[in-house]
Amino acid sequence: MKVKIRNKKKDYRTVWFSKGRVWMLDQPKLPFKFQIAKFKNYKATTNAIKTMIVRGAPAIGATAAYATAQAVLAFKGSDLNEFNKYMGTAAAHIKKARPTAVDLEHAVDRVVKSLRICDQVKECKVVAEQEAEAIAQEYIAVCKKIGENGNKLIDDNSRILTHCNAGWLATVDWGTALAPIYYAKRFGKKVFVFVDETRPRMQGARLTAWELAQEGIEHAVIADNSAGYYMQQGEIDLCIVGADRIAANGDVANKIGTYEKAVLAKENGIPFYVAAPRMTFDFKCPSGDQIPIEERSGEEVTKIFSEKGIVQVANPSSPARNPAFDVTPAKYIKGYITEKGVLKKEELKKLL
Amino acid sequence: MKVKIRNKKKDYRTVWFSKGRVWMLDQPKLPFKFQIAKFKNYKATTNAIKTMIVRGAPAIGATAAYATAQAVLAFKGSDLNEFNKYMGTAAAHIKKARPTAVDLEHAVDRVVKSLRICDQVKECKVVAEQEAEAIAQEYIAVCKKIGENGNKLIDDNSRILTHCNAGWLATVDWGTALAPIYYAKRFGKKVFVFVDETRPRMQGARLTAWELAQEGIEHAVIADNSAGYYMQQGEIDLCIVGADRIAANGDVANKIGTYEKAVLAKENGIPFYVAAPRMTFDFKCPSGDQIPIEERSGEEVTKIFSEKGIVQVANPSSPARNPAFDVTPAKYIKGYITEKGVLKKEELKKLL
Repeated sequence: MKVKIRNKKKDYRTVWFSKGRVWMLDQPKLPFKFQIAKFKNYKATTNAIKTMIVRGAPAIGATAAYATAQAVLAFKGSDLNEFNKYMGTAAAHIKKARPTAVDLEHAVDRVVKSLRICDQVKECKVVAEQEAEAIAQEYIAVCKKIGENGNKLIDDNSRILTHCNAGWLATVDWGTALAPIYYAKRFGKKVFVFVDETRPRMQGARLTAWELAQEGIEHAVIADNSAGYYMQQGEIDLCIVGADRIAANGDVANKIGTYEKAVLAKENGIPFYVAAPRMTFDFKCPSGDQIPIEERSGEEVTKIFSEKGIVQVANPSSPARNPAFDVTPAKYIKGYITEKGVLKKEELKKLL
Repeated sequence: MKVKIRNKKKDYRTVWFSKGRVWMLDQPKLPFKFQIAKFKNYKATTNAIKTMIVRGAPAIGATAAYATAQAVLAFKGSDLNEFNKYMGTAAAHIKKARPTAVDLEHAVDRVVKSLRICDQVKECKVVAEQEAEAIAQEYIAVCKKIGENGNKLIDDNSRILTHCNAGWLATVDWGTALAPIYYAKRFGKKVFVFVDETRPRMQGARLTAWELAQEGIEHAVIADNSAGYYMQQGEIDLCIVGADRIAANGDVANKIGTYEKAVLAKENGIPFYVAAPRMTFDFKCPSGDQIPIEERSGEEVTKIFSEKGIVQVANPSSPARNPAFDVTPAKYIKGYITEKGVLKKEELKKLL
């Protein structure tokens, strides 16, 4: 997508690979600073996932694919057995970066699997880089398709609630939950987006609001507490969110607070959609209660990102708890916006 | 309640009257600074309500009573007709400070009404000060009674969710929603409090967390988004919140986000209680949709209180919307903890 910097518009992707390095927009610095970070080996790239320089299930997937390629490129020697052992360790290291987004695992496995056709280590190096780039390109194509399919759900003058950031910053380009909104805009529809600020890490207020401002889409940031109020007042027509992992039964793990909004949408008769590519579905996982939920440091609650850096906002002598995700049972979800169309829970097997 | 400052414990009320001045704990500065602010006339005191140096329906009520007494004391002259005209203007000015909390209106009206027995302006000055102090004292007694009544709902080892601050900082002493918890603690019960941080103004993270830390009650601050998650996980036994105005049919206006938590509590089979004194009930208001909801500046969302002052947290080019309260329909409320006992919706007329 295009970013306007000092009055010039330039095309950016969230993450890309060049000269053996992984480059990405430094997301904890946004929107106060637009800065590009680069990582020269797979351990540094894995750490960037862990510390959330990059976040969002598809963006994590693409980054993990690039990290896997970096691991392949770094191997010194030509013994395939040694190489395979080394890659086993490297792949396990990358996969451990974060537990909830299944794209991470899927992307690493796919790059490793692609190497099976190779007879020589040097061949692996070519194939790994190609496969990683193919994954990133597929995410772009798939997100565009999600935009196309989701656009059909959006009437002119719709007022849409979204939670967290499932925009192009959470993917490689286009986004998942925001892709239908960008598509609708390009087709001349007028939309208004209520942006849940999404405490504790404020991905809504910082990233989604920034993206929408870049795209010239009318929006307002709201405290997460206000979403229910606007639903009750009849000011929200539909909700679209992203996902970190979707179980076989349609239960969705996504940013903490998604479950709250889904329950409130149901209570107020508002359709609640989840937008996600095939890569975010985990058909090996039967239901949401099997999805591991990452508990992050309480300091993400007691402190906050601001223009003045990270500052304390809670009573200093009080502890905090910080589950990063929650699981929304499938019964609250009206449909899944995927590259294969808008599917109902019963139709998810079409993705297999 | 006792406040520990530099290792010494000292008793404080949230607001008090002395030598014609209204003194209060400066709440936007808490918990980073413990500071006392004083206001020398009714306009300054009214402004302190407007700018939320003091907040919480009962604390606003007591402060408004003191402001009315200040207006009476400031009148120069002895003509009762002129005095009454002057007081009409002053009372209207004070009542306009904030629209949602009905205690404000009730307290001002009560002080003005108390003057009817006076034949002389100088008599009014004595009566007004006495009546204002009586209102503050009644709030203390009534909140203590709310604590006593609410304590019966709390089992040993209960895990309680509260939203915003309805502690002693929101009243003159004791609190409404927190009074039962303080009472339970004094009776030797172990409780754990999940403290919704309560964006945008963070009264939970700043004030409730500070109060609970002062009282040595085990607690954790959580992002408002996490409350639903902990309910779903079976980690919350009951919810207690305060109120800014309760309509005749039992609908409750309270801090934005209360409605969300009430819907989630119902969905998860968790009892949801509202603690409030008689003064917060507005029997002239038939239902919640008649309660005026204050819309405050969007800057309360895009910026946040922190140890480094007020800092920008949202994308700087994005607007925000900021309803300060919402209305929770009576059907989500299990009971009302009042000075007359824990009442069901059908029993609210006992308060008349």
